[in-house]
Amino acid sequence: MGRSLNLKHGVVELAHGSGGRASALLTKELFLPALANAELCKADDGAVFAVEAGRLVVSTDSHVISPLFFPGGDIGSLSVFGSVNDVAVMGAKPQHLTAGFILEEGYPLADLKRIAESMGQAAKACGVSVIAADTKVVKRGEADDVFITTTCIGLMPEGLNLDASNIQSGDQVLISGSMGEHGAAVLASREDLGLHAAIESDSQPVHGLVNALLNSGAKIHFMRDPTRGGVATVLNEVVNMAGKGIKMDEQVLPVREPVRAVSELLGLDPLYFACEGRVVVICAAADAEQTLKVMQAHPAGLGSVNIGEVVDGLPHLTVRNSWGGERIVNMLAGDQLPRIC
Amino acid sequence: MGRSLNLKHGVVELAHGSGGRASALLTKELFLPALANAELCKADDGAVFAVEAGRLVVSTDSHVISPLFFPGGDIGSLSVFGSVNDVAVMGAKPQHLTAGFILEEGYPLADLKRIAESMGQAAKACGVSVIAADTKVVKRGEADDVFITTTCIGLMPEGLNLDASNIQSGDQVLISGSMGEHGAAVLASREDLGLHAAIESDSQPVHGLVNALLNSGAKIHFMRDPTRGGVATVLNEVVNMAGKGIKMDEQVLPVREPVRAVSELLGLDPLYFACEGRVVVICAAADAEQTLKVMQAHPAGLGSVNIGEVVDGLPHLTVRNSWGGERIVNMLAGDQLPRIC
Repeated sequence: MGRSLNLKHGVVELAHGSGGRASALLTKELFLPALANAELCKADDGAVFAVEAGRLVVSTDSHVISPLFFPGGDIGSLSVFGSVNDVAVMGAKPQHLTAGFILEEGYPLADLKRIAESMGQAAKACGVSVIAADTKVVKRGEADDVFITTTCIGLMPEGLNLDASNIQSGDQVLISGSMGEHGAAVLASREDLGLHAAIESDSQPVHGLVNALLNSGAKIHFMRDPTRGGVATVLNEVVNMAGKGIKMDEQVLPVREPVRAVSELLGLDPLYFACEGRVVVICAAADAEQTLKVMQAHPAGLGSVNIGEVVDGLPHLTVRNSWGGERIVNMLAGDQLPRIC
Repeated sequence: MGRSLNLKHGVVELAHGSGGRASALLTKELFLPALANAELCKADDGAVFAVEAGRLVVSTDSHVISPLFFPGGDIGSLSVFGSVNDVAVMGAKPQHLTAGFILEEGYPLADLKRIAESMGQAAKACGVSVIAADTKVVKRGEADDVFITTTCIGLMPEGLNLDASNIQSGDQVLISGSMGEHGAAVLASREDLGLHAAIESDSQPVHGLVNALLNSGAKIHFMRDPTRGGVATVLNEVVNMAGKGIKMDEQVLPVREPVRAVSELLGLDPLYFACEGRVVVICAAADAEQTLKVMQAHPAGLGSVNIGEVVDGLPHLTVRNSWGGERIVNMLAGDQLPRIC
């Protein structure tokens, strides 16, 4: 090991996780320039930040996506957006981020640098700072390249409560854009379906869209990002929490053509494909039109549509097809899409 | 997959990480009973908690220790104490914890249950709650059993500042107990040195000891837990941050006999062995005796001793042996002890 990292041809070594000089070098020459901010530079065991009296929101996600680089994103930006979006859809303003890296011995430092830089850019775009981090290295074969666990802390506006208990019969279900592009993009690149170019992940931050919604005075009852398990899974969680049904019309569900092609090739329903840059918004019927307009006016919500309605009855998600037939869309037992995020 | 988990003979399946029904089952039947608290039960994407105006501390650590169960602890309790202790030694009161689990397909659910229960008990002992969590599953061979990343959030007492800039020449260096038992216990059990019974990890929470110190009115300048890289690494960080030297006397360094035996068998210096339940405290010489008494009066500090002194001069850690010879103890380039925490 030299006195500085070989960022061009070097690889992750066990020593980089030792806590000794090699660890310090990795932090100083790779992570700090990419993620740089004053708190992280202090190299204390923890980071200190000031708060006003109020409520905070915290969310954590481990990211194990494969491949690490996919059309429209990479594990670096995804690990930032993942936790930031979870906090944002609670109605909170994301503020601070922590990151825990688990690295496999032998992973190229040049690629790790790209990932860290992508994280830094994503954090900047979200207005959050990575204030604390940790790196562990395991031997070849004991992990698969890079896993990143992020935790986001956000500030909850006073009096806001986007609990599922707000949901009423008659409420409308809106989504901020087309469905399943993240899942389809990852699957297509993994399975080498020859559809690479056609599909990009929708991976993006939604805090700005949420902020625009809250500032518009729209009376939102509930929000959630339909990540792992897709829109079908999120809406199944909603019907269970709210004790009501949701009805959707298949013809209005926004699924782009290449996503539909992937789903047909693989025999999978795009309703279960993960999104990583969409929000499902539930609001009173009287407010739906205005809320949709606000969403459509934001860059992250241009493709927003109304996809369904909350109804009395059994807590089922049902979809009506073009012939008028209705089917219940259950939560899947498990899916065939490991490592989608 | 059945309608409930087979906690006796079942194993982790890819479906348990899908976000679908299998995931929900794992959360409901394994994690919630072990970690139970009101916030985690809400199954929102994030957890909400109230704060007063002031300063918070956040720290994150990924845990990849091998073996998962070792004499004196396991990855569950270790992952709690690890982050709790990092927050505590900043002078803050640990309050909330998040956990990200990365599980390898095929890992026995019975063992995962033991780990989760150990986490729950550890959290209770530390007065913290696991308020948000996430689980991902990767295929066999893509991870090694179980990795856990925890993030701890704590409350910083008003006006407290335990920055390295407080450190003055003449300050005394105290440690709350004997050195290197965690590292030695893990190494001994891994290498099958036939010393299993003799060494238990010192893995324990130190928040109570820190609290007792702060409440005693002792004027602490700096604290740190000597984990990965041990006392030598922490004190090397200190001399670099403070721009001063530290001198220690080898004869007073508290190393138990079986730890010394392991270090001699493996040709390693116990000064670099990780502790997971010790605190290094730096205070003014005039306060050292009283501070040591407070430490020795706490169950987590019974073996506290004064091990060194801050001195003017080059930022080196030096140790004087019994013949009066002095050697510089550097930060290691990297060590041969991967996956020690």
